[in-house]
Amino acid sequence: MPPAPVPAEVAEFLTRPNHAVMAVLRPDGSPHSTAIWYEWRDDGTVLVNMDDVRPRLRWLARDGRVAFTCTDPESFYRHVSLLGRVERTYEDADRSDIDRLSRRYTGRPYPRHAHPRVSVVVRVEAWHGWDRDPREAPEPDRPRLPV
Amino acid sequence: MPPAPVPAEVAEFLTRPNHAVMAVLRPDGSPHSTAIWYEWRDDGTVLVNMDDVRPRLRWLARDGRVAFTCTDPESFYRHVSLLGRVERTYEDADRSDIDRLSRRYTGRPYPRHAHPRVSVVVRVEAWHGWDRDPREAPEPDRPRLPV
Repeated sequence: MPPAPVPAEVAEFLTRPNHAVMAVLRPDGSPHSTAIWYEWRDDGTVLVNMDDVRPRLRWLARDGRVAFTCTDPESFYRHVSLLGRVERTYEDADRSDIDRLSRRYTGRPYPRHAHPRVSVVVRVEAWHGWDRDPREAPEPDRPRLPV
Repeated sequence: MPPAPVPAEVAEFLTRPNHAVMAVLRPDGSPHSTAIWYEWRDDGTVLVNMDDVRPRLRWLARDGRVAFTCTDPESFYRHVSLLGRVERTYEDADRSDIDRLSRRYTGRPYPRHAHPRVSVVVRVEAWHGWDRDPREAPEPDRPRLPV
């Protein structure tokens, strides 16, 4: 997988409100994945945000290695995956991060305020991409983005 | 996370050609994720299929622990994640598995036949689900599926 920084066209893709799945490590070292909102930042980091009760926060404090797969909502066959590790975790005290994420994905601030929110900043170290729709281009030998 | 078997409604969801991301472990124990086609099977396993040159096949032979997140193509806010481990790996010699997967997702057999294909069967051990669209239901306290 190519190391960071990601090329400009990949960074542009990542700025969109794509569907994303984040994979982390459980305490036994096994992978765990779930869908998540993310924000790509110009400094080559990814921001995610979660309820402070999420087990993933404890798991990430133990082992901060993370993988993301970000998929174009319009095409499952266009996606970028990222490898990285947690650089910083902090309470999103004024909820500005979760509200910004929510506006990006839904057009409005985040409605559920029962639990404190925590932001996690992941430094991206490597990436790979895929851009080949088998429904449109049946037999190319190579995807258009490096894999 | 609830242990397998998954409830009937979750199994029904998994039979659809959902978007899916598979997370595996690289040799250094870090997570790796990518988008993938999958097939849910009535015996509580998930079948995936890949080119025999994929590094993931070597990684899975080393550590067969896997996570999937399967997302409704119509709603990013409806998804099921699965934890499991590889039960069986075999060459898809007649390409029946990849053709069946391809038909399921694209309506036609798989076009690229440059490399041999390998099928991987994952035994599901636990799952969790999410079914709450923040655009439609702004303030429920709980998702409808257990998390």
